[in-house]
Amino acid sequence: MGNCIVPYCDGPQNTNVRFTLPAVCFVWQCAMIILFGVFVRYDEESDAHWVEHNITDIENDYYFRYPSFQDVHVMIFVGFGFLMTFMKRYGFGAVGFNFLIGAFGLQWALLMQGWFSFLDKDGFIKIGIENIINADFCVAGCLIAYGAVLGKVSPVQVMVLTLFGITLFAVDEFIIIKVLHARDSGGSMVIHAFGGYYGLAISWVLYRPNLKESSQRNGSVYHSDLFAMIGTLFLWMFWPSFNSAISDHGDGQHRAAINTYLSLAATVLTTFAISSLFQKHGKLDMVHIQNSTLAGGVAVGTAAEFMLMPYGSLIVGFFCGIISVLGYIYVSPYLEKKLKIQDTCGIHNLHAVPGVIGGFVGAITAAAATESVYGAKGLINTFDFVDSYRNRTPAVQGGYQAAATCVAVCIGIGGGIFVGLILRMPIWGSVADDNCFEDEVYWEVPGEEVPVPPVLEYNNHMATNKNVDVMESRFTVEQS
Amino acid sequence: MGNCIVPYCDGPQNTNVRFTLPAVCFVWQCAMIILFGVFVRYDEESDAHWVEHNITDIENDYYFRYPSFQDVHVMIFVGFGFLMTFMKRYGFGAVGFNFLIGAFGLQWALLMQGWFSFLDKDGFIKIGIENIINADFCVAGCLIAYGAVLGKVSPVQVMVLTLFGITLFAVDEFIIIKVLHARDSGGSMVIHAFGGYYGLAISWVLYRPNLKESSQRNGSVYHSDLFAMIGTLFLWMFWPSFNSAISDHGDGQHRAAINTYLSLAATVLTTFAISSLFQKHGKLDMVHIQNSTLAGGVAVGTAAEFMLMPYGSLIVGFFCGIISVLGYIYVSPYLEKKLKIQDTCGIHNLHAVPGVIGGFVGAITAAAATESVYGAKGLINTFDFVDSYRNRTPAVQGGYQAAATCVAVCIGIGGGIFVGLILRMPIWGSVADDNCFEDEVYWEVPGEEVPVPPVLEYNNHMATNKNVDVMESRFTVEQS
Amino acid sequence: MGNCIVPYCDGPQNTNVRFTLPAVCFVWQCAMIILFGVFVRYDEESDAHWVEHNITDIENDYYFRYPSFQDVHVMIFVGFGFLMTFMKRYGFGAVGFNFLIGAFGLQWALLMQGWFSFLDKDGFIKIGIENIINADFCVAGCLIAYGAVLGKVSPVQVMVLTLFGITLFAVDEFIIIKVLHARDSGGSMVIHAFGGYYGLAISWVLYRPNLKESSQRNGSVYHSDLFAMIGTLFLWMFWPSFNSAISDHGDGQHRAAINTYLSLAATVLTTFAISSLFQKHGKLDMVHIQNSTLAGGVAVGTAAEFMLMPYGSLIVGFFCGIISVLGYIYVSPYLEKKLKIQDTCGIHNLHAVPGVIGGFVGAITAAAATESVYGAKGLINTFDFVDSYRNRTPAVQGGYQAAATCVAVCIGIGGGIFVGLILRMPIWGSVADDNCFEDEVYWEVPGEEVPVPPVLEYNNHMATNKNVDVMESRFTVEQS
Repeated sequence: MGNCIVPYCDGPQNTNVRFTLPAVCFVWQCAMIILFGVFVRYDEESDAHWVEHNITDIENDYYFRYPSFQDVHVMIFVGFGFLMTFMKRYGFGAVGFNFLIGAFGLQWALLMQGWFSFLDKDGFIKIGIENIINADFCVAGCLIAYGAVLGKVSPVQVMVLTLFGITLFAVDEFIIIKVLHARDSGGSMVIHAFGGYYGLAISWVLYRPNLKESSQRNGSVYHSDLFAMIGTLFLWMFWPSFNSAISDHGDGQHRAAINTYLSLAATVLTTFAISSLFQKHGKLDMVHIQNSTLAGGVAVGTAAEFMLMPYGSLIVGFFCGIISVLGYIYVSPYLEKKLKIQDTCGIHNLHAVPGVIGGFVGAITAAAATESVYGAKGLINTFDFVDSYRNRTPAVQGGYQAAATCVAVCIGIGGGIFVGLILRMPIWGSVADDNCFEDEVYWEVPGEEVPVPPVLEYNNHMATNKNVDVMESRFTVEQS
Repeated sequence: MGNCIVPYCDGPQNTNVRFTLPAVCFVWQCAMIILFGVFVRYDEESDAHWVEHNITDIENDYYFRYPSFQDVHVMIFVGFGFLMTFMKRYGFGAVGFNFLIGAFGLQWALLMQGWFSFLDKDGFIKIGIENIINADFCVAGCLIAYGAVLGKVSPVQVMVLTLFGITLFAVDEFIIIKVLHARDSGGSMVIHAFGGYYGLAISWVLYRPNLKESSQRNGSVYHSDLFAMIGTLFLWMFWPSFNSAISDHGDGQHRAAINTYLSLAATVLTTFAISSLFQKHGKLDMVHIQNSTLAGGVAVGTAAEFMLMPYGSLIVGFFCGIISVLGYIYVSPYLEKKLKIQDTCGIHNLHAVPGVIGGFVGAITAAAATESVYGAKGLINTFDFVDSYRNRTPAVQGGYQAAATCVAVCIGIGGGIFVGLILRMPIWGSVADDNCFEDEVYWEVPGEEVPVPPVLEYNNHMATNKNVDVMESRFTVEQS
Repeated sequence: MGNCIVPYCDGPQNTNVRFTLPAVCFVWQCAMIILFGVFVRYDEESDAHWVEHNITDIENDYYFRYPSFQDVHVMIFVGFGFLMTFMKRYGFGAVGFNFLIGAFGLQWALLMQGWFSFLDKDGFIKIGIENIINADFCVAGCLIAYGAVLGKVSPVQVMVLTLFGITLFAVDEFIIIKVLHARDSGGSMVIHAFGGYYGLAISWVLYRPNLKESSQRNGSVYHSDLFAMIGTLFLWMFWPSFNSAISDHGDGQHRAAINTYLSLAATVLTTFAISSLFQKHGKLDMVHIQNSTLAGGVAVGTAAEFMLMPYGSLIVGFFCGIISVLGYIYVSPYLEKKLKIQDTCGIHNLHAVPGVIGGFVGAITAAAATESVYGAKGLINTFDFVDSYRNRTPAVQGGYQAAATCVAVCIGIGGGIFVGLILRMPIWGSVADDNCFEDEVYWEVPGEEVPVPPVLEYNNHMATNKNVDVMESRFTVEQS
């Protein structure tokens, strides 16, 4: 983007966000309160009038979806948040800005998704458990994009990325789900393909030619890799909830969970295999274990609620593990060197490509659906062939699913370039090239001094304390 | 408490708890077994006779509340436990003594709450899923109080704090829920206001004038702040389950979860805003992010099951984030300097004040309830206006809610002073002022030596190992 | 096993698993796909035909068991995984190979358990939510065994251990559940006694006389102990879900959760008591807190769904805490010195012995069952005295339960010796005695260098940065 029309100050910006960040947070939060006051109400299952319906309490949608919701919530805030703590000096920014994106994003998502997809005939957005799951999903798209620019943007830029990301997501989702009537319960297309390409496009526009000046911080230390594994595992474990959270009640949710469970298991084995095979000495690389093991969950998102069959899920997971690790080894360096896309977390290999694969797996599975496999009622139930879609055939549905994948990618890339240009403006407190991946820019970071050893007067005089020596030696050296 | 009637040995006590801690644990656990043998039985839904009832299995209360129970359980043991690991040298004490409080407290709570609120007509306490959630809630009150004295008390003192804390909680809860017939499903009053002032009062009585001698350990290191974020996030994510766990089936639980979800989201934004605004250079402070982001969950506890409306939840969260961060910046130092209250975790800003706010938000929301908003049946259902409370009006209910808040604060302060005086007795193995916030006093702490590097004879001779250099240099210095 | 018939190369083997590990992963994953294609289908509740059944969606078994499943899933991958991260230099191997075992094991378990216990009359294994919980349980057996050999085996050996472990588990389970018609919902016998003795027997065969050469790495550092507490707490918190996950709907699950909750609470108190009592200066030992606090969950596994009564659960937990800590203090060193069993994680004290205790507690509780306590229908319902077991009495059932415990131990020991001999073959890339407990053998481990401090050109020139000094001093020393 060398000849970009938007002026871009390559020199160091003022990274002091003391006024911009509070201003953005306050103004946007106040806007949320006003808009919620005007537009948002409880839906009939969370409203106090609900007791007048003559159905049993347990049939409230809450009980079908609440356990999945909480799992999804964990994925968004602990899963994504800790997955990104792998860097030695960017743990606060990873988990903290992830928190900020999530908290703002879910409010804006309730509004945007409400206006596009859930607006009641009386002009209100009526929210219930399914809406808050959808809001979390919407946030996931932005967190994926954040992964590409992790460590290179200011918290204000992060808020802007989220504002536009949620908006684009709602459009993307409206076209795919409402217009094309595609099915995407796990969001391979809507969430992962969109979020992946959105982030990559932003990263391309924000290309930093001198990022290598921060390369010494762009790596992990032993314990930061373990923190990241907390994120990986919570994502991996709860992915069956993610893909089944908004599936149809009954067999739909049941099947989506099983398919995701199996796909992810297969991915782990091929990830370990390829990681070992392509490293000198056959040693495993934590980058692959932390990321590629999740690709199977992404890729089975669309098809998880279909009759993909258990072996079908394993096949999807099998190939995604391979493709994702090879992406980290070969494609990411190529993207950085040739296409000028600096992708901090490798979302290309974890979300973008597996998301597209997932879209096409969904298209093929839908196109191959038959009444003998699904049953006549099951086919209608699974693909929602009702009302104006009464006459749609599985083959046609497959075509729409494939089209939906392309829509997600296009909106992601187009939106990302647009938002990237906005983020290039030199007013957002962005960090200099040699200070990327560093928490000290935006956080009060505690010193790392060795704690002064305890003086245990009463009953521990004899305890040898090795810390004393280490600490004293350090200070001795410093003084000399 | 300079002229306190209880003698207080300011000199170093014997911190060896080798006999007192085992004695307390054994005796109390044996007492629990005997009392459970005499008093505690399964309720009808967890008893094997249940199969004789002619209702479907899914209508067992277990399925309405079990997912929330497990989330609450995570909040108690991982949430509170890890939130307190922020100190560089008190991680074991934080998560370990939290574990001990929880495990003892829940047993004692089942008994105390049973005697006060759940005693059957045949003299037995019949327990089911709701009782074990309530027991976890009761423990939360004590863990909040533990936050105020974290690092300054011995494990035996912690057990005494819990024994009395649970007892006081049961009284507090009985008066508020049974006598005043106030509603408090998320426990703003019963749990947070009580627990907060209980802890602050204890901390006031146990004031340590020379605590600054331990100030070098009263801070975080980089990774301890990340451990604390695990606690923060699990509390934040599962708070909707906390506030909805014992709400009414159906719309009550549904609404409580949504309101809490929204309130917490708004709190995050104002916390980030104020944290940045009041720091030099606009840098964010992890203390605020770890704690104040949770204030919205506390403050919406009472009103979560009411028709607070989505925008109402956002407003509550909005102001609590601001108040809580300002509390950390201005009020906590004032409390320590002027009121002699040393509040290690800042529970004043996270629990005490937001709890009181929550009580009054609940009172106002209740007083403002109308049949048009709730529906005639919904109003009765939500506020439980049945039997002897058949004629209570929303306005009267609001008055009782406000009174309940005052009750919680009074029992907290009064009980805290009483328990604080007991804890001042020089028999509990309390730590000296210059050894606070230090795990080595009560724990076997591993040395921090750099591991000896591997000698990889077979196929890794060429691998450069930077640890070798670091370690050798250290030992060299030590020997010189 | 000094005179073992299998040749054992005591010298250093080639630890490069670059070909063996990928080969094993690929071939076995391909085998899984083929076998799943031939044998595995959805059961009727997860199949799209399910909509044709005329029952409400909420009665799908999915809603009875899904929350428990997700909790069990967390126990397997985060609980076991992080519990084993206590060692200073084996965190990657702990959590990473745990991940690999789990992902492979659950696939193989679905097949093996399917063939033995769930084969349909049309030759298919029809899977649903209960099968995937069972698969996770099966994996738990292998992870327990992995705990005994942690740090001493290669990833290829780990895969072999899992392949045979799952197979033996399926046999063990078939004999205990199907042949003996014993009840074991929480798996004290099937999972813990089997897994514990399986691992101990393998460790005995793989005895390393020179393991002390790695002793400097066989210990914890401060933060590794905190990581391990994440594992401990998730195991402890979710154990009620583990023991109730496949219990009977309704009161069975409800009671199993309550009993487990109580037993675990009692264990914590006696663990703290004994840990303090038997240490010099009364200091608590993290090894005990991390492990022995869980023994009560193991030991109540079989009896949790019976009418053990709340005080009965407390008694079980009370004694298991004592026995487990004493095991760590006295029995583990004895096992290592006299019986040549090197048990890295102390599974003898956490799984093997508590599992056997649990088996006999189950036998006694079953034998003592009466119609007055259970009700006539409740007795039949709880012990499944139907069909050919219609005339079995509680006393007879107790005998079968006791026999089942012995079966589990025998299969564990016998199978472990057999698999241990296979693992001794010098083809698996096992690590040398002086390189045990070291991640660098099989993982790319990041260097531990202090990060280069940020150069904050714009607005932070004045910030003092202590890291600079530390780092410079290190390099200074190195150069001198």
